[in-house]
Amino acid sequence: MPIDLHVALIHYPVVNKHNEIIASAITNLDLHDIARASRTYGVSGYWIVTPDAQQKELARQILGHWTEGYGGTVNPDRAEALSLARIRNSVGEVIEEISSQQTDKKRPLLIATSAGDGTDHISFSDLKKVLSGGQSVLLLFGTAWGLALDLLEQVDMILPPIKGPGDFNHLSVRSAVSIILDRLCGIR
Amino acid sequence: MPIDLHVALIHYPVVNKHNEIIASAITNLDLHDIARASRTYGVSGYWIVTPDAQQKELARQILGHWTEGYGGTVNPDRAEALSLARIRNSVGEVIEEISSQQTDKKRPLLIATSAGDGTDHISFSDLKKVLSGGQSVLLLFGTAWGLALDLLEQVDMILPPIKGPGDFNHLSVRSAVSIILDRLCGIR
Repeated sequence: MPIDLHVALIHYPVVNKHNEIIASAITNLDLHDIARASRTYGVSGYWIVTPDAQQKELARQILGHWTEGYGGTVNPDRAEALSLARIRNSVGEVIEEISSQQTDKKRPLLIATSAGDGTDHISFSDLKKVLSGGQSVLLLFGTAWGLALDLLEQVDMILPPIKGPGDFNHLSVRSAVSIILDRLCGIR
Repeated sequence: MPIDLHVALIHYPVVNKHNEIIASAITNLDLHDIARASRTYGVSGYWIVTPDAQQKELARQILGHWTEGYGGTVNPDRAEALSLARIRNSVGEVIEEISSQQTDKKRPLLIATSAGDGTDHISFSDLKKVLSGGQSVLLLFGTAWGLALDLLEQVDMILPPIKGPGDFNHLSVRSAVSIILDRLCGIR
């Protein structure tokens, strides 16, 4: 049975470097890189979350160019990857839509990633088991300086921080998504 | 003993979609994302390879802004990551410089990544053993449509392609570097 894993890239609510809640800007390369990684690892949906009307329009234009416009005709692989992307106003909307796609209307398990030491951590191997058991999972990734505390408090569990040999772990969100998808869905 | 792993991002010689040899353009986000992943995973040097004078000057300006200029003062983590980056004319220059840093002046093992099925594949676990045995390793990553055949023929071995559950594997070079460093140096 194929797994049902979703990726959401959150532009609101996230925090800036002063820990203030902001809406971050859409980044062209976030759309591309994360769509390509999502398609490579068999992700069911890549959800771009922002409530800002102008930002939604910008994302729509970029996606349209690559999925329906000229970009897709010269680069069909890119069209295939970006066709996974959906623009939504809030995490709530994404949860509702994924739930409505389930035969039992069950809510997806909500998982965040964080560099902090929470108590509700789930290991990568346990999350793999949850996925292969048929449970839908929605992974939340924060842009800017990360997910707002309010949103972090709503998730079911948190993945442990990604670590190398030292203490430095300032990865881009593009790198973090790629590594986490490889740990969950990579074939070795 | 710390490992001695190097990452080179090749802008020449690489191929375009028609398999013609070109020099590709420096991308700001390649410098940042790959430096941040390199620093996270304990990489010894991040080598940016291009022979083009204008492109080298552009890369120097970007790196200078973040390591010595204003960028570094507002974002010291970024300065720390980008201080790993070195701009060089050719893979040959990089090999020479890494060799000269070794006490025995030994050449680093040259490893490429490729989606093709070569005969000289080395597995991720075998390369991990080579690294922990103290051998210096230089990983080559191609921009554009990948490393030119001439360069591929000079490497010692090739890592297997990164795969998810399906056949699609059009990852960005930023994603590919992040995933490969995690497979070689990630702490789980």
